[in-house]
Amino acid sequence: MPLPKGNNNCITDVQGVQVGHVTLYEKVDEENTVCTGVTAILPHDGNLFREKTTAGSAVINGFGKTTGLVQLEELGLLESPIMLTNTFSVGAIADGTLAYMLDQTPEIGDTTGTINIVVGECNDGYLNSIRRQTIEPRHAIQAIENAKAAPVEEGAVGAGKGMVCFGHKGGIGTSSRTVTEAGRAFTLGCLVLSNFGSPEEALFADLASTNTDTPDGSIMIILATDAPLSDRQLRRLARRSSAGLGRTGSHIAHGSGDIAIAFTTAHSYPHQSNNLTEFREYVRDDHPIMNRLFQAVVETTEEAVIRSLQQAETTEGRKGRIVKKAPI
Amino acid sequence: MPLPKGNNNCITDVQGVQVGHVTLYEKVDEENTVCTGVTAILPHDGNLFREKTTAGSAVINGFGKTTGLVQLEELGLLESPIMLTNTFSVGAIADGTLAYMLDQTPEIGDTTGTINIVVGECNDGYLNSIRRQTIEPRHAIQAIENAKAAPVEEGAVGAGKGMVCFGHKGGIGTSSRTVTEAGRAFTLGCLVLSNFGSPEEALFADLASTNTDTPDGSIMIILATDAPLSDRQLRRLARRSSAGLGRTGSHIAHGSGDIAIAFTTAHSYPHQSNNLTEFREYVRDDHPIMNRLFQAVVETTEEAVIRSLQQAETTEGRKGRIVKKAPI
Amino acid sequence: MPLPKGNNNCITDVQGVQVGHVTLYEKVDEENTVCTGVTAILPHDGNLFREKTTAGSAVINGFGKTTGLVQLEELGLLESPIMLTNTFSVGAIADGTLAYMLDQTPEIGDTTGTINIVVGECNDGYLNSIRRQTIEPRHAIQAIENAKAAPVEEGAVGAGKGMVCFGHKGGIGTSSRTVTEAGRAFTLGCLVLSNFGSPEEALFADLASTNTDTPDGSIMIILATDAPLSDRQLRRLARRSSAGLGRTGSHIAHGSGDIAIAFTTAHSYPHQSNNLTEFREYVRDDHPIMNRLFQAVVETTEEAVIRSLQQAETTEGRKGRIVKKAPI
Amino acid sequence: MPLPKGNNNCITDVQGVQVGHVTLYEKVDEENTVCTGVTAILPHDGNLFREKTTAGSAVINGFGKTTGLVQLEELGLLESPIMLTNTFSVGAIADGTLAYMLDQTPEIGDTTGTINIVVGECNDGYLNSIRRQTIEPRHAIQAIENAKAAPVEEGAVGAGKGMVCFGHKGGIGTSSRTVTEAGRAFTLGCLVLSNFGSPEEALFADLASTNTDTPDGSIMIILATDAPLSDRQLRRLARRSSAGLGRTGSHIAHGSGDIAIAFTTAHSYPHQSNNLTEFREYVRDDHPIMNRLFQAVVETTEEAVIRSLQQAETTEGRKGRIVKKAPI
Repeated sequence: MPLPKGNNNCITDVQGVQVGHVTLYEKVDEENTVCTGVTAILPHDGNLFREKTTAGSAVINGFGKTTGLVQLEELGLLESPIMLTNTFSVGAIADGTLAYMLDQTPEIGDTTGTINIVVGECNDGYLNSIRRQTIEPRHAIQAIENAKAAPVEEGAVGAGKGMVCFGHKGGIGTSSRTVTEAGRAFTLGCLVLSNFGSPEEALFADLASTNTDTPDGSIMIILATDAPLSDRQLRRLARRSSAGLGRTGSHIAHGSGDIAIAFTTAHSYPHQSNNLTEFREYVRDDHPIMNRLFQAVVETTEEAVIRSLQQAETTEGRKGRIVKKAPI
Repeated sequence: MPLPKGNNNCITDVQGVQVGHVTLYEKVDEENTVCTGVTAILPHDGNLFREKTTAGSAVINGFGKTTGLVQLEELGLLESPIMLTNTFSVGAIADGTLAYMLDQTPEIGDTTGTINIVVGECNDGYLNSIRRQTIEPRHAIQAIENAKAAPVEEGAVGAGKGMVCFGHKGGIGTSSRTVTEAGRAFTLGCLVLSNFGSPEEALFADLASTNTDTPDGSIMIILATDAPLSDRQLRRLARRSSAGLGRTGSHIAHGSGDIAIAFTTAHSYPHQSNNLTEFREYVRDDHPIMNRLFQAVVETTEEAVIRSLQQAETTEGRKGRIVKKAPI
Repeated sequence: MPLPKGNNNCITDVQGVQVGHVTLYEKVDEENTVCTGVTAILPHDGNLFREKTTAGSAVINGFGKTTGLVQLEELGLLESPIMLTNTFSVGAIADGTLAYMLDQTPEIGDTTGTINIVVGECNDGYLNSIRRQTIEPRHAIQAIENAKAAPVEEGAVGAGKGMVCFGHKGGIGTSSRTVTEAGRAFTLGCLVLSNFGSPEEALFADLASTNTDTPDGSIMIILATDAPLSDRQLRRLARRSSAGLGRTGSHIAHGSGDIAIAFTTAHSYPHQSNNLTEFREYVRDDHPIMNRLFQAVVETTEEAVIRSLQQAETTEGRKGRIVKKAPI
Repeated sequence: MPLPKGNNNCITDVQGVQVGHVTLYEKVDEENTVCTGVTAILPHDGNLFREKTTAGSAVINGFGKTTGLVQLEELGLLESPIMLTNTFSVGAIADGTLAYMLDQTPEIGDTTGTINIVVGECNDGYLNSIRRQTIEPRHAIQAIENAKAAPVEEGAVGAGKGMVCFGHKGGIGTSSRTVTEAGRAFTLGCLVLSNFGSPEEALFADLASTNTDTPDGSIMIILATDAPLSDRQLRRLARRSSAGLGRTGSHIAHGSGDIAIAFTTAHSYPHQSNNLTEFREYVRDDHPIMNRLFQAVVETTEEAVIRSLQQAETTEGRKGRIVKKAPI
């Protein structure tokens, strides 16, 4: 039985979560088009370093350049926005996000330690003149400042501007589900940056007539929930997104960096504290609600991918290449 | 475009691979029924310790008791048959397989080191009186001795005798595909022991009318190929099986131990050697055939699960419980 | 500054922890000697399945046949005693431990799910006629029933009876430390089954004159603490034991299965519960006490290895082989 | 028996390996001092993208911001120099290294895919005004262009300029060993960026009288060898470095990002090829030379740390802080 959708069928149905985009588009010359962008996902609207978020990740296929996962896995904490952009702008976006966080948080790198910035990426080089590295650190700051709860723009927007999915225009898609058990209701939301798949792979529609010769691509999958979960449990959620990809028809191609990051807003973790210990509430792994959350991951991952196609308009990129809106 | 099936659509289409079953079934009394078994998968018909097989594995969900993966991952080698049985018989089957290998190989534990036995399992306790631990070490030896190339019996046979999948009778299923590139053809085969899923999850058929209240279950996925792959590449294959599970509708439930093991018959690795080094041929990760092999994993995993249902007959187990053949 | 030792410098200084041994020794004939055993570590004296223990593990070198780690890592829980024995008796000991737990817990495999048994091993085949598989399931039950808080016998006892370390007689060693911060005191204890290292490697003593030509061996490292830690944090502890090994001089040889398991007695986790969630207290990773716990792991691992040598007597095994007490 | 040292006891004893530094030092005002730098390690002097290097890594403690490990682990290949710098300059150095590689390799991001840049870091914020982010992308290019085979400067140089180790001046250290078996000789070299440890931890010297209140720090460990090893085997090497750290006295502190990367120069892997497969030679895991290589990792890691202290001069940093040369 499919789960009920959240209010806006959007990752921001998880209270506190915000999403911001910056989109860059410019035909530079015959050869070159800037067709790229940045998307920021904020777990809450406070200081993300001072009030960290419990998180886990899964590398479904590691052909990708995502930064920040080493520390996220060691400590089970997220302390920055999750930033999405194109492959060659990871450095610029990491720098801009760092600058934003340093500005907000004077103690970082002075009286306290450093900060771990998480940046995910896909390669939009089919449409975007990626070698020009048009994205600057200030675009990270703009994306963060653009963040808001709803509505979230989908399709060829933000980091999704130049992405291609199943041979058609892909990009940003989002979806959400609610689960209810024992008088408590939780929301799980998913946001994807879709840039993977060949037309023949798609199971949800007949896309095979299109003949776009695009490379393997990638997908970033961001999962948010307000269910109180531990880092281990969030890693379990993140790993289920591969079943959602399977439903779309993906074979998880060699060249596709398929990476999922899951966080919970149920409890924050203060950076500064004199406490020896912290108390936390976690869902029991064997409670039926855990399987409903897993189901929500599978369903929202599949739907967010499909929505990223449905919401994306036909786009012209470098070398006059045109990627069409999917007929769905 | 779906890939062509192998000659028998069976894991033994990979030359040299053999499968053997031992099935135990007996109504003991009102309460108790023995409804279980053993399945052995042999990479080749020689001495599996002396001529090891390159292998990799993926723990999709670790709620399982599979033995032997620690060393398999460290060394990238398989040196025993892969044995499948019920959860409480892992010890007996490990012992029996060890006895078989010791008998075949007098040098183990005497003039050379020990041996790593791989045993996978699912919980058939819904139909089988699992606490009785009816399976004995000798059943492992029988299953190995029963092994042959083709045909492979499917359904409620061997380790599959007592398994339940999507609320219907599951068990052993198998499938294969061939991939051809640049004048070379490879085969990839899959064998599953299916024991997972609730009726409502199934995407391939309407099974939801059934009301079996079975626990989360598990699935063991064995992948064989004759493509020359490294342990790292076989691990990549094993991980793709989660997308195949996703296609069937699985949410990869909490209590389901979903574990995949992949091996190649392309080259063996001698236990005893005075060589300092070995030379091996490996497929390039970026060659298009790699994506075809990934596709073969997804397709065969999905089909092997469906076949395990199609081939399984309605079965009566302990406490008079009856699990019906799926209407597919 | 070295940390203070616990009351008995023993893993059972962590309250509730118990250790039991069964030792088998018999000269069978000219060729064969039974020189082996079993050691059981119990986190508490209640029903270990009904009241589970939070745990984590680290595979330092995976050339080993330890069972039960897949599920332990997925769920972060230990639900059986930790059993240690020789490599070829893992099946028998798993079976015996299962039988013990089934007897204690009628609901397992009937009205509730199955149980995950953890068995670690080293290869005592230099002294012990390991191919004879003398150990039976009942020895597991005896070892569990022999378990007590203190004193813990060390040296050539239990699973350590036939082990060889740095070319001298090794086996069971144990050690403990206390850490005190902010008015709270915690204990960390370590028990090792030592069977690794060549004489020339040893840094703590000059053992190089001995000329025992023993194979690479292995080490099992069990860490217990009463500090409230999560599964992730216990995995961090387990990983630090490699630094303790480094101090002894170990190069972590190819053929040495070096595996660490850490658990906490600070809180148990009920198997049966209608609760949706659980509340737990965990040490902050950034509190100074965490580094003291890491230090305790390093110090106790090193000392437990040394004690396993100090406490072990010269032992004669199969083929008339004699392994001498280390001159320390 | 300690292994013989390489010709220069330096990572560049592995033929083809080059190291380059850029050091920045400037007293800006009363408060601020720039005291930082960049170090580049090049596996060979050709195009590192077109001729990739087999590599593996180990995250000993993941409190670090190293980039590039996700893809390195998935594919077992290194395709950029390994760059070391301070924590807040990872973005700038990634960008500069990318620019260098794009300039050298016009096909990247145009007719072929993207590139994976590996940047390691430690936090030099005790001496360096790290929040100023003085390092620019051009410094990456300079460090690469400065790279040469020998001699390699050690101590307070390059990325090591501002680092602190065991409460004394640390930074860059290097060491090498040769192993000879069956008529073949191999070299293994190690380069560390040392920034970890409290004075009391040191086992190799009495450093405890110093009272520097520095944070936990980190260590980057780079291992190079000309032995023909697979990615899996290089990961085995990388993991052994934790035993080398243990010898120095390290407890692998919570806040210390301890990360090792190992590569081999024995064979390169062409980016562009129409081959379906590649043939490679690999050392047998069970050949005695493997244990000698492990020993070489332990010995060179320990010695490189000690040399980083021996070669570093007393340094004054921000806020007038002075970190002294270790009395060794």
